[in-house]
Order: sequence, then structure tokens, then C-alpha cells
Amino acid sequence: MHEAESQVPLFRLADASNGFWARYARLVRSRVIPYQWSALNDRIEGAPPSGAIRNFRIAAGLESGEFVGMVFQDSDVGKWIEAVAYALRAQRDPELETLVDETVEIMAQAQAPDGYLNTYFTLREPGRRWSNLWECHELYCAGHLLEGAIAYYQATGKRGFLDIMCRYVDLIDQTFGAKPGQLRGYDGHEEIELALLRLFDVTGDHRHLELARYFLEERGRAPHFFHAQWQALGQRSHWTRGNVSSPDLAYFQSHLPVRRQTEAVGHAVRAVYLYTAMADLARRTDDSELRSTCEALWRNVTRRQMYVTGGIGSTHRGEAFTCDFDLPNETAYAETCASIGLIFFAQRMLQLCPRAEFADVLEQALYNTVLASMSLDGTRFFYVNPLEVWPRASARNPDRHHVKAERQTWFGCACCPPNLARLLLSLGQYVCQSEGHTLLLHQYVSGTVPLPGAAGGALLEVETGYPHDGRIRLCLRGEAPADFCLAVRIPGWCRTFALTDQGQRVEQAADSDGYLRVQGPWQRDHELLLELALEVQVLEAHPELRASAGKVALRRGPLVYCLEAVDNGDNLSALTLDVSSELETEPAPELLPGAVKILARGWRRSAQDWTDNPYRIGSAAAPAEEPVKVVAVPYCSWGNRGPGEMAVWVRAASERGHGRSAAASAADRV
Amino acid sequence: MHEAESQVPLFRLADASNGFWARYARLVRSRVIPYQWSALNDRIEGAPPSGAIRNFRIAAGLESGEFVGMVFQDSDVGKWIEAVAYALRAQRDPELETLVDETVEIMAQAQAPDGYLNTYFTLREPGRRWSNLWECHELYCAGHLLEGAIAYYQATGKRGFLDIMCRYVDLIDQTFGAKPGQLRGYDGHEEIELALLRLFDVTGDHRHLELARYFLEERGRAPHFFHAQWQALGQRSHWTRGNVSSPDLAYFQSHLPVRRQTEAVGHAVRAVYLYTAMADLARRTDDSELRSTCEALWRNVTRRQMYVTGGIGSTHRGEAFTCDFDLPNETAYAETCASIGLIFFAQRMLQLCPRAEFADVLEQALYNTVLASMSLDGTRFFYVNPLEVWPRASARNPDRHHVKAERQTWFGCACCPPNLARLLLSLGQYVCQSEGHTLLLHQYVSGTVPLPGAAGGALLEVETGYPHDGRIRLCLRGEAPADFCLAVRIPGWCRTFALTDQGQRVEQAADSDGYLRVQGPWQRDHELLLELALEVQVLEAHPELRASAGKVALRRGPLVYCLEAVDNGDNLSALTLDVSSELETEPAPELLPGAVKILARGWRRSAQDWTDNPYRIGSAAAPAEEPVKVVAVPYCSWGNRGPGEMAVWVRAASERGHGRSAAASAADRV
Repeated sequence: MHEAESQVPLFRLADASNGFWARYARLVRSRVIPYQWSALNDRIEGAPPSGAIRNFRIAAGLESGEFVGMVFQDSDVGKWIEAVAYALRAQRDPELETLVDETVEIMAQAQAPDGYLNTYFTLREPGRRWSNLWECHELYCAGHLLEGAIAYYQATGKRGFLDIMCRYVDLIDQTFGAKPGQLRGYDGHEEIELALLRLFDVTGDHRHLELARYFLEERGRAPHFFHAQWQALGQRSHWTRGNVSSPDLAYFQSHLPVRRQTEAVGHAVRAVYLYTAMADLARRTDDSELRSTCEALWRNVTRRQMYVTGGIGSTHRGEAFTCDFDLPNETAYAETCASIGLIFFAQRMLQLCPRAEFADVLEQALYNTVLASMSLDGTRFFYVNPLEVWPRASARNPDRHHVKAERQTWFGCACCPPNLARLLLSLGQYVCQSEGHTLLLHQYVSGTVPLPGAAGGALLEVETGYPHDGRIRLCLRGEAPADFCLAVRIPGWCRTFALTDQGQRVEQAADSDGYLRVQGPWQRDHELLLELALEVQVLEAHPELRASAGKVALRRGPLVYCLEAVDNGDNLSALTLDVSSELETEPAPELLPGAVKILARGWRRSAQDWTDNPYRIGSAAAPAEEPVKVVAVPYCSWGNRGPGEMAVWVRAASERGHGRSAAASAADRV
Repeated sequence: MHEAESQVPLFRLADASNGFWARYARLVRSRVIPYQWSALNDRIEGAPPSGAIRNFRIAAGLESGEFVGMVFQDSDVGKWIEAVAYALRAQRDPELETLVDETVEIMAQAQAPDGYLNTYFTLREPGRRWSNLWECHELYCAGHLLEGAIAYYQATGKRGFLDIMCRYVDLIDQTFGAKPGQLRGYDGHEEIELALLRLFDVTGDHRHLELARYFLEERGRAPHFFHAQWQALGQRSHWTRGNVSSPDLAYFQSHLPVRRQTEAVGHAVRAVYLYTAMADLARRTDDSELRSTCEALWRNVTRRQMYVTGGIGSTHRGEAFTCDFDLPNETAYAETCASIGLIFFAQRMLQLCPRAEFADVLEQALYNTVLASMSLDGTRFFYVNPLEVWPRASARNPDRHHVKAERQTWFGCACCPPNLARLLLSLGQYVCQSEGHTLLLHQYVSGTVPLPGAAGGALLEVETGYPHDGRIRLCLRGEAPADFCLAVRIPGWCRTFALTDQGQRVEQAADSDGYLRVQGPWQRDHELLLELALEVQVLEAHPELRASAGKVALRRGPLVYCLEAVDNGDNLSALTLDVSSELETEPAPELLPGAVKILARGWRRSAQDWTDNPYRIGSAAAPAEEPVKVVAVPYCSWGNRGPGEMAVWVRAASERGHGRSAAASAADRV
């Protein structure tokens, strides 16, 4: 099967008004995209101007003025156009299309005769192109513009933006490389690599593949490019005055040639964008060494440096990975964009070697960190997705200032909300893939997808209340080819499932890759019902994961749960969950349509019998703990009922055993 | 009793070679002081030059060159002379005295004709005196030099240095104040205030008291002095180029007039130096309002923002207090100097209103954070005194870079080691005080002190193996006055004690202030034996203290204990202490003469049956925990056997009950 060409057929999400994903897509279309357009055009009252569109207008000679914003401001326009393209692909919108077309027209005029297109350097530092790649994001911006151009071309068939970007790529291709007179370098923020590989899909031009390969293979070679540029700039930095020490190569994943990297280091978003491109290249070039590297990096990220919510990046300083099992809850960074990048990486790993574990992590990041990053009304966003929040400490302790108890409105130059918008509107690209005549169904989303190899437009139709409900109806509409195989992923979290084929129970296990394969024979309008048991699960963390020792987290299906003060009172640390008690569920439509909350028994340590002392000798009196009902809600819905404490991990004990076997006791039940 | 004048008679520490404190004093005299002198004179190979002495030589015209070091470099010389003075008071040393005299001679030549004495401004920014008090420590340096001058005068009777400093104080007195032409200001780092009050003791000159009072009362009044200076300097900073935002007044405790402050905020060392001076002034001026303020601040510091080790300052950013009950263990700052400052504050509170709680905290900070800061061989020092260390995370996670697993050698400009030196050599000032004819014995240290009101040199002689042994022999040598009263502190940690008076058991409780009062009649060579039961105690933290929820700490007498990897293996978070088990003790002379370690039963979570997953559903298999022996050692001795993990707080459970009543079960035993 691995030899068959992997393809991603277009999965079209159902537009049912009560659908889980349809709701999110609607929010992005109706709120995020228009808001973002206003922001790009400096029309948000009270917000600092983005300058992003105006910078292009100035560069085009349509307006006079100075560059405004960050050095990577252009990328916001690219991400917005990409999100719009996905929206248009699902549903045409001439007005929105006109906005893009007008923007592309400005870009065309802003482009230099040789193809260069970057408003910061054009306006602010003409003549200093490519001089500070470790800090100035030129190729990163090019990458995002390129992704926008590709998506817009694919959505509308219009080539204008794509042609602009191909000219720019031609210039980049002439500029960078190992030939005499070329710059032997790469960008400080990976992104151009994965964009070039997407471009190759569209153009089939091997120069595009080779340029991506060049940037990947050159990275991390000695003598180090960033050190040379830093020296050439007199040891100066774009960001501060005065001399600075040499760039920290690990931050940019340029400390080692990429094939020799086995541990995720540095800025988490940069890292997963790099790994995404590496996995993509490994597949396209059938490079088994590079594939092994990607597998090693995948294992390191997901098995040693990932929060249970699919968040990555343990420290806000450098927004970075730290080391194996260092996953502090209350100071986590877990940036939204990093989990989005992890989803890209997972998708490329699936295409490289389809195994359910990649789809599992994709699901974990998507349903938890990524969804939690947006408020349920689509107007506010988290950049940092903590596992634990204590609002007073966030306000008063600078080590926790980055951990917000409330989402922020989206302002001028911010990476996460536009990244979220393009992901949520392109979700159909992450649902399934075909390998020859096999359709692998990775994610459970209501919608339709053409069957591979089917003539006459046969479709698979998926209908489900997932993730709140575990029943997934699968109907083959039209005539399925005789050799069609449907492979449905049995999620790693799922311990009990049932498959019914045309009303008949099928007794079959998943294969070693984690997929349950159904081979036919197929009837017209063949129906399958997959039922994944959504039991409440008590999770424990690896003993080396110090920050969560003695604690448990709750999960139901792909949704990780958390405790909030609004349900449980202040001071969540005073709670202990009784893991030997029955964990019940109850509908919670007030949170999210279809949502359920978890109810458990527990105890709360009381401060009532305490004197004013912060420490005391263990009291001989009755334990000052009162039995309480503990309420847990989906992490993706937290922070929508006012600011307050939140915790994913909670201390655990058991009425039956003693604390040390808490998790074991829980297992008796589930 | 409170009306009687509080005095601190000179307690002379016993010099027995095996004495607990004699050992530390010897280390400071034989290692720290000579090392520090070499450092001040730039003679430490491999260390960046301190420049401290050379700066004075250049300012004196004895050498040419440029100022070297930090803006507060002069203070190091003051602290060193102060430490030397205490050493000389205990034991004359003509060679050491000559070094000081020569240094004082240089200072005399470095002093400006008008009395000004600060090498940074004299050499680097002449004409800009007093222009940036929020950052440049001029009065702070003056304060430390002044303390050195006072101590040296008191030790040797030599007035040279004192006279220099009195001239400087005259200039400061003319410069600062509310009169026309005077600067209405104060220093960014409190210190001059407490030094001036010490000077008043020596001179009896009320100008000195009034100047201290002025600095204290002016602090925090609007319009804010630091904001005005920052504006006057064009919003520039001493430390960085470019404009900076206005000084954060809370960092300097200048956000509010000091009488209106009730919560400890900002830089912890600054804060406790300020409170020390406030308490000292309240006593000297019998100011009940100011005393109430000090009591409120004391309660806030010690009952809401203090670690169980007597450490203060929860964040390394700003080395600062954060908020009530925010006491994270693994990112604690708990600077050595801050606990030393807390000891100063406690001492002044004792003099203001002698209650055992002040002496309790003094003891807690002294025997734990302060002692732990120096290696047992006196050559290496901690600035940060963590409650938990995981060396790999300290190396790899920038949020923990400040937490070192190994003490550092002392370099050029460092505040903590010299501060420690002067404290350890002046310990006699913290042992007792007299109130009329009552001698209050606060701390249990071997040595002698003259009885108050005694003619003929009657002495109290104290002999003890404290803190490892709880027996304290108290002998009155010579003829005690008939109205003499000996008040011995019953420590807050002590639940059982016995007093034997001339061989007769005395049944008497401590008074409400925590002192046990013995009134006589006195015999010649009267002997008392106080026995404090040194049981092992299991401490729990207040339920609001989130970071230590579900955990316990061990204490024996004043010594807090900790677990180290060298005894317990790596990954201390995998351990659970069985608090229902018998906690045994065993001699541990290999750590420290007289020390004992604590042995307990516990369990260790094993990673053996884990797959490669970081999270799993609670296993139905037998709990992967093995019974282990847990070893705890005094916190003051940690980190002397190579780098490794350390933890003060450890998860607790009980074989008898379930985890939630861990501390309660422990109480059955002790």
C-alpha cells in the first residue's frame, strides 16, 4: 500500500447548521475574516495600525508614507488571502474575491522589476536585501505569500497572484544556492520550504522542489550562515542597539544539518514548520534516511515534549522546546501556531507513512489546543494555551505574565488568529487520504468525499455528532469500485468500538497501523456504522513527567477536560479527585452544542481550621477536607465564562486504595 | 517590660572547635575574608576584575585608569570592612587591621573636598551626582560604607573611617531634604536609612536620626521623585540605550508612602532593608502607627510570601515578591541576601516588641536559606536558594536558568557572599537582648553574655549541641542580681520541652510572647537545663499555597530537610512519602558534625511498565510502585555531594488512610 501514490482528495465539510465543524467554519467566515481585513487596513478602532495593506500601497507608489509594523508584516496578507481562498473554495463570494483581486493588483505594482517583493526592505532598507536572514523573515514572508497565491489559484483558477510569486521564486532561486555568486543561506524562520513543495504540486517544475531541498540540506552546515551574516553586520541586531552575541543556532534549528537532528529544539513553530517540509520532501523524493530523521523528531516531539492537550513549547522565553519531559503546567507556552504547525507535520507524516498515531496527535492538537485558542464566539484568541491558570499569579508574577486567563482581541500583527483561520477553513485537507484504491479516513467529520478510482462520482458520506458522540455513519453514495477499500482509523484513545456493515456486526480488529479495513463487496448506498465508545478516561503522566506527578487528567474521546473555578470554586489545587468514584457525564449545551461535562466525586481541603500560619505540623484533628462534586468541562470550551482558575491536571486519590495507586484504581472502573 | 530600653549585649560565641557556629565563623575568617580581599584587589585568576579597591585608588590619584565594575562597586568594600570588623571584635589580627587602615587611607584621599565619596560618579560621570537615584545606588553605597565604618570603629576604636563617612553624611544631609534648594528624594535601593540609624547609636546626633526619618517619610510621596528624575534624564536609563518606560515604583517600594504599605512588593532585598529601617525608627521614636505598619508588613512577608526555608522572593524577574501564597518551588528566587535582610528585619522587630515569632522566623531563615547558601567548605555560594532542583531543566529551560544545582565561586561584584560573611561574624548580635533586668535568650548558641545590671562581670554561659541536639545548658557564672530574669524562647516549632532548675524539674509554660521566664532566686553558678524535643515533624502547607498542595516537608528542630538524588536516586517526583510510617533518624556526621538524617518509608513510581507514551489510561495492572527507603538530609547541607536533584516538598500518602488525609495521619504519630 505504501507504494501507491498518496493523495488528498477534497473532503467537503457538511454545512449543517448544528454541525461541530460547520459552526467553527461559519465563525471564521463571518467574524474572523472580515475582522482581519479591517485590521490589515488599519480600521480597528483603538488598535495600533497593522500597516500591512498600506505598506504594499506605498511600495506600489499608490500612497506616500513610511513602512509600519513588524519586519514580517507582509506575511499577514499572505495568510489572510490563504484563508479567504479556502473560504471561496467552499463557497464563492464575489465581494470577497474582489478584495483579493484588488490586493493582488497592488502587489503587482509593488513588485520590483527583478521580482523582489518585500515591503519592509523595499521601503525601509532598500539595498540591504538578504543581509539579515536570521532575524528579518524575508523568505518566511515569501513563503506565506506563496501559500496564499497557491491556495487562491486552486480556489479560483486565477493565476495573477501565482504569477507574481513565481517571478519572486525565480529571483530567490537565482539568489540562493551553492553556485559562485550565490548566497549559501536560508531563512531564520522556516516556511519557504513547505511553500515551495506546495508550489511544486501546482507547477510540476523541479526547480521548485530542488530549491526547497537546497534550503533544507544547507541548513545547519558549517561554517554557519547566520554567524557569518551576524559578523558581516558588525555583530548588530535588527531588534536592539549595540552589539549582540552571536545567534543561538538551536533556536533556528540550524545548529546541525537537518538529517542529524533527532531532538526538537528551539522555537517550536519554526521547528514544526521545518519538520513538515522535511517529511514532505522525504515522501516526494522517497528518501528513507530523511524519513527516519522525521520519525525520530516526531517521536521526540510527541512522546517527550508534548502536553496532553497537544500543545508544544514549554517556555515562553524563545517560545521554545526545552528538554524531554519538562512540561510545566502553569508556565507552559503551548502556542496556538505551534500546535497548528504540529498538525501540518502530522499530515505530512500521514502522507509519508499512514499510521493512526499521526492522525491521533493531529486530532489531539486540533480538538484541544487549537480549538481552545478561539473564544466560542470567534472574537477573541489565546496565543498561549496554558494547562493551568491562576489569574492572580498571572497578573502579579512576571514568570506567568504570558499566561492569560482571558483571550485577547486580535490586533494588527499577530500570527495565531490568521493561522487558525486558514487551518479551520481548510480542515477538509486533514480528514482523509487515498492510497491507490484505498480511502483512509483519519478524522471523523460530517461531509462527503469522492471515492478514489470511482467513475460516476461515487462518494463517501460521513455523518456524525463527533467528538461529543462516538457514532459515525458512513454511506457509500453511488457505485463503489469493486476494489475499493475503506480504512477507518481506530483512535489510539479508543478501547472499545463496534463496526456494523449493512446492519451486520463485523468482528475485526484494526491493523497494525491502527486502521480497520473494509474491503467490500459493496452494495449501492452501502451503509456502515462505526461506534467508538466515548468512555471517560483517567489519564496519568509518565513518571518522568515531573510536573504532573500524582495528578490525573480526564479525557472523553479526543477531548481533554479541565476544571474551572466557575464550576468548582477558587483554588483548584485544594481539590482531589476520587478516581475510584463513578465518573458521570451530563449534557452541557450551554458550553457548546452537543457538549457533555464530567461529574466526579472528590474532596476539597479546607482552610477553615487554619490559623494565620502558612505551614503547620500535620493536624491530629479530622482531616479538613469536605466531599465535593468535581465538574470537568472540555478544554476547548474553557475560559468562556469569565476569567478564573483553570487546571487540566488535578490531584488524585482513591477511597479504596491509598494515593499512590490512584491511577490503578481508576482502571478498575473504565 | 516593653517600656524598658531594649539593648543588645555582646554575646560572645564559644570558640570550641566542634561547635556548630564556631565552625562557620572559622570558615568565614579563614576562607571567605581572604578570598574576598583578593577579589576586591583583582587577584582572582580567571575571574573578571572587581576593580573595587582600584577604583578608590584611581579616585585618590594614586593610580591612573578607568572605573571598573558595577555602579554599586564601592559597597563591596564597605561590606568587607564590616565583616573584618566583626572578625577583629572576636579576635584581634594586626595584619588584617593594617589592610583596612590602608584602605581607609586611600578612601580619605579619594573623598572630595565637600565630603562626596563615590568612585563611579567621581570617575565616570563627574558632575552628574544624584541625577539617577532610582538606578545608581549612590546612597546605597554610602550606607554600606557607613555600616563598615561604624563596625570598624566599634571593633577597634579607630575613628578614621567613621570621620570620613560622617563628612559624607553631612553632605548628604545638606543635599537632601524639604528645604529650598534641597533634593526631595531617596535612593532606589534602601540601605542608607538603616545605616544612619546605626550611626545615631554611635554619635547620638539627632541629625542622623532625622535624616533617616526624612528618607523613610519622603519615600512614595507624590509627585514621584523617580518619575521626575527619569523625565529629567530624557526617559533614559543607566542600563540600556534608548528610551525606557518610567520606573516601576513598586519595585523600589516607592509606590506609596511607607506608612500606607501593608503588602510586601518589589525587589525582596530592597523591601526588607526598608522594613528593617522602619522598625528601627518606630522603636527609637516610639511611633505606634509606624509599628503597626511594620507588624502588617511582617505578617504579610512571613505568613503569605515566605518559603518554609525562610526564603523570600518568588520570582527571579526583579528578584521580587509576587503575591500572597504564590510560592513556586522549582522557580523560586529566595535570594540569600533577602533572607539576610529578613533577619535584620526580625532583629529590629524583636527590639521593637520582643515576641518569639520574630526570633522563630530569624532562626528559620538563618538555619535554612542562609546556611544553605554556602558550601560546607566555605568556598562556593548560592545566590538563589531553590526549594526544588532538576539539573537538566535548569540547563535547558530558560525559566530555570537561575536555579543552580551547584554553588558558584565568588566573583568580583556579588552581593550575597560578603553579606553572608558579615552576618555570620556578627551572629552574637542576634542571640539575645536585655529589657531592663531581663535577659531574653532568642537563639541557642554556645557562648557567654554579661547579665544585664550585674556588677562584677556576672555572665550567662550557654552550652549546646543545637540545632542537632535540643539540650541547652545555661549556667550563671558569678553573682546574678536578685532581680535578674532569664527569659528563654520556646521555639514555635517546639511541642515538648522540659526545664530543670538546679536539678529540679520546673513545670511552667511559656508566656503569651513565647518566652519561658525564670525569676530566681539565684545561686552562685546556678544551672538550668532546657530540653527542647527534636522530634521529626511532617509539615503541610496552607491550602492556598498551591505549589505544595498534596505534599509535605520534614523538619527537625529548626532544620528543614530535603531529599537529594544522591540518597534517593534520580526523579524525586516519582517518590511518595508514607507519612504513617515511623520516621527514624540516624547520625550523619559525613554531612556536617553532629547532623542527623531522617529515614522514612515510601514508594517510587516505576517507569518500567511504561511504553513509549507520555500519557496513558490508568493501568489495571498492579501499581507500578516499589517500596523504598526515603532519606532526607538537612537543607542547609544540600548540594555538597555533587550536582543532582533536590526537593524540600515531597508527595505524601499514608498506608492507613488515603492520600487526602496524609498530613492528618502523620499527626497521629508525632
